[in-house]
Amino acid sequence: MILRKISKRIFTSIYSPPRDPKFSNLLNSDMSFFESILPPHQIVKDNLEGFNTDFIGVFIGKSSLVLKPNTVNQVQDIITYCAKRKLAICPQGGNTGLVGGSVPVHDEIVLSLSNMNKLVEINESEGTVLCEAGVILEQLNSQCEEKGYIFPIDLGAKGSCFVGGNASTCAAGNRLLRYGSLHANILGLEIVTGKGEILDNLSSFRKDNTGYDLKHIFIGSEGTLGVITKLLINLPPKPKSEQLVYLGVNSFENVLKILKKSKEILGEIISAFEFQDRFSVEASIQHIQGVHDPFDAPYPFYVLIETRGSNAEHDSAKMDLLLESIIGNEAENGILPQDKRQSNDLWKLREVIMEAVAKPGYCFMYDISLKHENYYDIVEKVRNLIGEKALTVGWGHVGDGNLHLSITVPDRHDVEDIHGKLENFLFSYLKECHGSISAEHGIGLQKRNKLSISRSPAEIQFMRRIKNAFDPEGIMNPYKLFPDN
Amino acid sequence: MILRKISKRIFTSIYSPPRDPKFSNLLNSDMSFFESILPPHQIVKDNLEGFNTDFIGVFIGKSSLVLKPNTVNQVQDIITYCAKRKLAICPQGGNTGLVGGSVPVHDEIVLSLSNMNKLVEINESEGTVLCEAGVILEQLNSQCEEKGYIFPIDLGAKGSCFVGGNASTCAAGNRLLRYGSLHANILGLEIVTGKGEILDNLSSFRKDNTGYDLKHIFIGSEGTLGVITKLLINLPPKPKSEQLVYLGVNSFENVLKILKKSKEILGEIISAFEFQDRFSVEASIQHIQGVHDPFDAPYPFYVLIETRGSNAEHDSAKMDLLLESIIGNEAENGILPQDKRQSNDLWKLREVIMEAVAKPGYCFMYDISLKHENYYDIVEKVRNLIGEKALTVGWGHVGDGNLHLSITVPDRHDVEDIHGKLENFLFSYLKECHGSISAEHGIGLQKRNKLSISRSPAEIQFMRRIKNAFDPEGIMNPYKLFPDN
Repeated sequence: MILRKISKRIFTSIYSPPRDPKFSNLLNSDMSFFESILPPHQIVKDNLEGFNTDFIGVFIGKSSLVLKPNTVNQVQDIITYCAKRKLAICPQGGNTGLVGGSVPVHDEIVLSLSNMNKLVEINESEGTVLCEAGVILEQLNSQCEEKGYIFPIDLGAKGSCFVGGNASTCAAGNRLLRYGSLHANILGLEIVTGKGEILDNLSSFRKDNTGYDLKHIFIGSEGTLGVITKLLINLPPKPKSEQLVYLGVNSFENVLKILKKSKEILGEIISAFEFQDRFSVEASIQHIQGVHDPFDAPYPFYVLIETRGSNAEHDSAKMDLLLESIIGNEAENGILPQDKRQSNDLWKLREVIMEAVAKPGYCFMYDISLKHENYYDIVEKVRNLIGEKALTVGWGHVGDGNLHLSITVPDRHDVEDIHGKLENFLFSYLKECHGSISAEHGIGLQKRNKLSISRSPAEIQFMRRIKNAFDPEGIMNPYKLFPDN
Repeated sequence: MILRKISKRIFTSIYSPPRDPKFSNLLNSDMSFFESILPPHQIVKDNLEGFNTDFIGVFIGKSSLVLKPNTVNQVQDIITYCAKRKLAICPQGGNTGLVGGSVPVHDEIVLSLSNMNKLVEINESEGTVLCEAGVILEQLNSQCEEKGYIFPIDLGAKGSCFVGGNASTCAAGNRLLRYGSLHANILGLEIVTGKGEILDNLSSFRKDNTGYDLKHIFIGSEGTLGVITKLLINLPPKPKSEQLVYLGVNSFENVLKILKKSKEILGEIISAFEFQDRFSVEASIQHIQGVHDPFDAPYPFYVLIETRGSNAEHDSAKMDLLLESIIGNEAENGILPQDKRQSNDLWKLREVIMEAVAKPGYCFMYDISLKHENYYDIVEKVRNLIGEKALTVGWGHVGDGNLHLSITVPDRHDVEDIHGKLENFLFSYLKECHGSISAEHGIGLQKRNKLSISRSPAEIQFMRRIKNAFDPEGIMNPYKLFPDN
């Protein structure tokens, strides 16, 4: 899936900071060093477009070197050398990030984890997996499923994202409601810091109160402190029963009422509560092949509820209770799919939105967290502000307060004007209602100068202290996460 | 509950490091400063035994001053002044810790959170609670229950421990299996660092990827980085149905088989899986009034399983399925209590063990995490090693790998000899099998010089870096957590 790139020049000119002169330029002697520690096929110097260009095609770096270590010791040798030589590094996993965090900005060396893709062990008795950072999420999940477990997170990019990148960005996705965040599920990490030190924190215990729990600082640090090389992760059991229902709803107020009832009646088996507005369904029908209107009539809002449980009979009884309570009341209409294919079609309606809204023009996407009272209010306010010149769409994981908001501008001449209006309004709204400027996508290059909307000067100063403790030369993923001084 | 103290002199002589001369002595001018910022009733100078003595009565400090701030600004003023003057501080919550972490070692000023005990708000729509650090766990839980929620952790000391202390020590308890650790449940913290800076990190979002997640470093840091003053915590819904079963089991192998079947059959409703050996039941019957043998015949092992769910009918059907599968197979006998009183009696059998084993002599207690294959093996090896001169008892949260191991020595003349043997064996066993020297009690004063058994030199060095970033003068809870240099 490659999204449209009509205005990439605008975006890169907005977001690209100047090269930091403190970093050295890559010399022939540096190349000789890398050639002395890595065989030729682990050093890539040509055709680097894929490594330099991000997933949505708007962030494009200028790296001339990609290193692909096979072992933690090779990672250590590379980082130790780069720290000494002040060569900047951009760690890269599956390069599926959406905020420009996973590609170089200037000439940073790309440190790709793609060769470190071994699943070391699934411990069936303890319910844990130990693997390298370059394992692809979907493949790992399949291997866990063969042993009766699942990986605790699931997200759209699962076919190409790496679990190391998931940890570095604290990726969340659809099922946080049921299994919790990666802070709740990662038991241990192996990390190489920006000083080239190896931190082996691979404890497999769910209870281990032996000093500061260092791994949490690296979860979500976006490669700015070091590189995650190995992970030990708690695995929930594979559900024996899965159900899905797709609802048409007349008001956002009723969406929230359905959420409340679902938590009450479905209780411990609810695993996803996804929301989308009519605009997102229309965009998907129009731009994505094979997507059809789910109901005969349109509804302003749609809700997808998923359950995952251990007993099909009990789970279906709970779902019946919920539907009896809401259909004809808070929900206008509902589909209970009869087979896997129908389920997939309904999930598809939810999963293709990002692709659909990016097709008809230049697309601004926001990934924010809001309290329920502000959740859809912000979408309506943006729609009123921008008007007919753009398509404003809202959808997301309403069960955990995470809204995806997209504004698609068909005419490129309107892009700059709308961008200015949007950012003015959005960030002051978020500041006012104490929303988060990034729910799950992270800060990266895109949002670094907005960080102070969600974080206080004291918090940012504390983050800098931590950065300085683990990456004193500042070589790890520069120009990302931190605002300009 | 005060445990027996026959050998406290031995313990304190073993664990007490010399006073660090870098700290200043308390002067009259210091007292004048504190009197200028706090009213008289917030300054305690007399009858400090309760503040100086820990819960089990073996760790006894010599503080001559207790300060009881009412507000975060008072906490800030105190710490800022102490950092400037190099006066050491021991933050104190409910003082229920078991590793000497919550009492002063020498003349540290005790900073008691007891006055900061306001429940600020339970947000019923979002399912969160905002409260000050000095709120008592049990009281907070009751107030959450009135709104249809529960506090996510539950532990023996709930009647006196403070939630701020729970966060500082990453307290866990019985229901981690169901609700996860405090890292999974704390959404935000307000902290005053050892430099006197306020860190307001009270975000209420379940997804908030905006830079390093600083709160996690403070969870479990045992007051060595600063003082937690306020907490924002995720609340699970109050279960509509609770069940309990108590089983007699013939082998530890069968205990593990029952655990596996329980996870399979009870699935998402299992909330506790507790284990105790016959020795623990005998000690409880002998030393605690009102405790009786649960069955007519003795069994070498006992298991208590608790479920918490949203639908009584479904939960009871699942429990029936489990019992049909295990009774007469992996379990020899079982009790399904018919009312709350019977349930409480069975929980009591599990909860009084610590009190019971401490009665007949000097008691060494260990709180460790082990893989299943080592879990009871270590208890049997200790029993063989120490023999008849002590009572060796094992119990714990086997569902999450956490073992409590106690060795009670009736004759005080044997204490020193047994202590030497025990520590030699135990810590080398733990090192060999990569166990954790502290599952949930923490490091405190007691285990600081054993930290290197569970943590590498690199990890300890990284912890020191973090300590230095937030408490550069080292005034916060000195002599705790970190080993001697």
